[in-house]
Amino acid sequence: MKRLSGTNAEIAELLYQEQLALAKQNDDAEATVRQIIAAVKEGGDQALRDYSAAFDQIALQKLEVEETLIEAAFAEIDPEVLTALEHAKENIVSYHQQQLEDGFEDQPEQGILRGQLIRPIERVGVYVPGGTAAYPSSVLMNVIPAKIAGVKEIIMITPPQKHFAPAILVAAKLSGVDKIYQVGGAQGIAALAYGTETIPRVDKITGPGNIFVATAKKQVYGLVGIDMIAGPSEIGIIADSSANPKYLAADLLSQAEHDVRARAILVTTSEALADAVEMEIEEQLQKLPRQAIARQAVEQNGRIIIAENTEGMFELMNQVAPEHLELAMADAYDYLEKINNAGSVFLGHYTSEPIGDYYAGANHVLPTTATSRFSSALGVHDFIKRIQYTQYSQEAVKAAEKDITALAYAEGLQGHAKAIEVRNDRS
Amino acid sequence: MKRLSGTNAEIAELLYQEQLALAKQNDDAEATVRQIIAAVKEGGDQALRDYSAAFDQIALQKLEVEETLIEAAFAEIDPEVLTALEHAKENIVSYHQQQLEDGFEDQPEQGILRGQLIRPIERVGVYVPGGTAAYPSSVLMNVIPAKIAGVKEIIMITPPQKHFAPAILVAAKLSGVDKIYQVGGAQGIAALAYGTETIPRVDKITGPGNIFVATAKKQVYGLVGIDMIAGPSEIGIIADSSANPKYLAADLLSQAEHDVRARAILVTTSEALADAVEMEIEEQLQKLPRQAIARQAVEQNGRIIIAENTEGMFELMNQVAPEHLELAMADAYDYLEKINNAGSVFLGHYTSEPIGDYYAGANHVLPTTATSRFSSALGVHDFIKRIQYTQYSQEAVKAAEKDITALAYAEGLQGHAKAIEVRNDRS
Repeated sequence: MKRLSGTNAEIAELLYQEQLALAKQNDDAEATVRQIIAAVKEGGDQALRDYSAAFDQIALQKLEVEETLIEAAFAEIDPEVLTALEHAKENIVSYHQQQLEDGFEDQPEQGILRGQLIRPIERVGVYVPGGTAAYPSSVLMNVIPAKIAGVKEIIMITPPQKHFAPAILVAAKLSGVDKIYQVGGAQGIAALAYGTETIPRVDKITGPGNIFVATAKKQVYGLVGIDMIAGPSEIGIIADSSANPKYLAADLLSQAEHDVRARAILVTTSEALADAVEMEIEEQLQKLPRQAIARQAVEQNGRIIIAENTEGMFELMNQVAPEHLELAMADAYDYLEKINNAGSVFLGHYTSEPIGDYYAGANHVLPTTATSRFSSALGVHDFIKRIQYTQYSQEAVKAAEKDITALAYAEGLQGHAKAIEVRNDRS
Repeated sequence: MKRLSGTNAEIAELLYQEQLALAKQNDDAEATVRQIIAAVKEGGDQALRDYSAAFDQIALQKLEVEETLIEAAFAEIDPEVLTALEHAKENIVSYHQQQLEDGFEDQPEQGILRGQLIRPIERVGVYVPGGTAAYPSSVLMNVIPAKIAGVKEIIMITPPQKHFAPAILVAAKLSGVDKIYQVGGAQGIAALAYGTETIPRVDKITGPGNIFVATAKKQVYGLVGIDMIAGPSEIGIIADSSANPKYLAADLLSQAEHDVRARAILVTTSEALADAVEMEIEEQLQKLPRQAIARQAVEQNGRIIIAENTEGMFELMNQVAPEHLELAMADAYDYLEKINNAGSVFLGHYTSEPIGDYYAGANHVLPTTATSRFSSALGVHDFIKRIQYTQYSQEAVKAAEKDITALAYAEGLQGHAKAIEVRNDRS
């Protein structure tokens, strides 16, 4: 862990420069991804087969993952994992149902009606990474909010595999995916955005992926909606003197084991706690199966920040704007009010981040790389649209004519004024 | 107006190809914009001055538009326009206040707390176009929702002018802008995203602009939030036999006068109504000051679609997914339920689109080019973040341990399991 100290302003500037560098890394794959998208747009299914042969070394028979494979996955899955997925689903459903929102309607004056409708997006594509990052929990987290929003058709894509992890297919079925296609990478995102002979084009694409997937999502944004540009995963911890170094080290490492690019950031006022956490990290690393990944992540992207005081801890952490934030504090709940920027917050000494990753119900698809400054966890709101409506009676138009035409003429748009005047027989 | 007919499927395919072509146009400025952004990131204020001299032919003294200029604008503005802006502000405020949302909290089991906080974005930048597209109504529409959301600091930028339209500065003051800087184009977006010596970097950028502005917003997306990639403005009208061709023509032209790229699309089942509208358009065009622009827009991007029946009209219009949608129908309100994709809907024969553009209160910053399939009018929701939180007691963690660790081991993330086990003295 690299230790940062200095005034809050100095540390804040260092953190900002690190964020800029992280944001820049995403640019590297742009040209390659642009080519892949163009090839899929042009070549359709055949292009997907070609990429699968080249990138995944798999000669695809069918693009669709068939029902028989899904049934086999239910037979194969460890019953304890199935039970855990079912419990996680219940928790995710009950959390996200609270995000459902209603439209509204008002009548501010006689003859005037205004309102807002809520409508689900019609067709959504969910990307699920393959290989070592094949996470059934991600399937639940992406699909369940879309289902609750009322999305009519949910398409899942995932890189082709000789043998799919059964939990992935089971999670897809449990959460209500309509179709699964085996195609990954930028080519998969292109297929969802433009459609192919087999894969229908969607209105919005969600789900995490590697740098090619993230770059492809950025490139098709506008033609389709996307959830967010996901960067490496992050944990931030604010710890007071009541914190247990053993717990802190375990939580920092649970993030670090994801990826060598994962970020783990501890903010505290106590040098002694910082020292104890560093010792614990070293000790726990020895026993971790993914030691190599976690060690590299901690060495490169681990940060311990010694803040001047409690206020300073929150100020700096709000600038980090971490994806996951633990408040390892005695009265954690009381400090919620100081948090402006974070994806998901875990309160107190026992709420380890993995509780949220897998289970508690809040979403684990979260804004990374300081994007929680302006965006939020994936939720039901990402799968709905708000449609405005307005109705004026002829009398109401007459009453508003003077104001509206004054603005139209001020903006030099006489056609706008004319459209009002024609209603009042003044054309 | 180009007439499209055929089966619904044939027309739908034509419309989709037109949308694809429109989405592509945005790619043209990419290289130029990339250079401009890099120059501003590197050169700061000096780069802004250089671009102002080169693009706007203005040698800037101060980047900030000073308070004395704003006071002068209040002295200069037409009192009727001031009154109209004040009334519009009231309507926009009362509409958008209905979008405010609350967080939630639940206790699904003993020892478990889950919730969602609502927090405003801290600093927002609003782009306001200059020249012929300097619309005071756009200032109100961008700034008021941010204010209602509770944004702490709102920065407005607008291209430098020898003399600013007074209504622009007045609208900024009325709606609560904190600072105004005179910088436009891609260089203005770069300044908001990266900050310069004078202009503070923001968390999110909203507001419409030309292709350079739109492309720059796309390129800085990720580092900062953006509202949407705005394309040319659009109106769609669904008209039944009760519609007045004179009103329809005036409304189609009120959109067409914006820009030669503006789109005007009429869907009806009646050839006779289509003919009458075309005649009216020609007649009204003769009297329109912006005839040249409107004529080119109507000729290039005007479409009259003859649908097979009422169901078909809505099916095709949902595919067009227009920014503005008028239902010129006798029982317009009853047809709201058939609308899945639209930015803002205007009901009945008297609710001309300009009522919404200027006045009624619903937002006029709307998704274009079929993006209402997955996105919505600008609103209070665009200026808040939803922050999740979770708290588990030690007993609750113990009860959930079996499920959580089963999922962690299934995903091959032992460090995640360890972080739970260490809490239960099982490390």
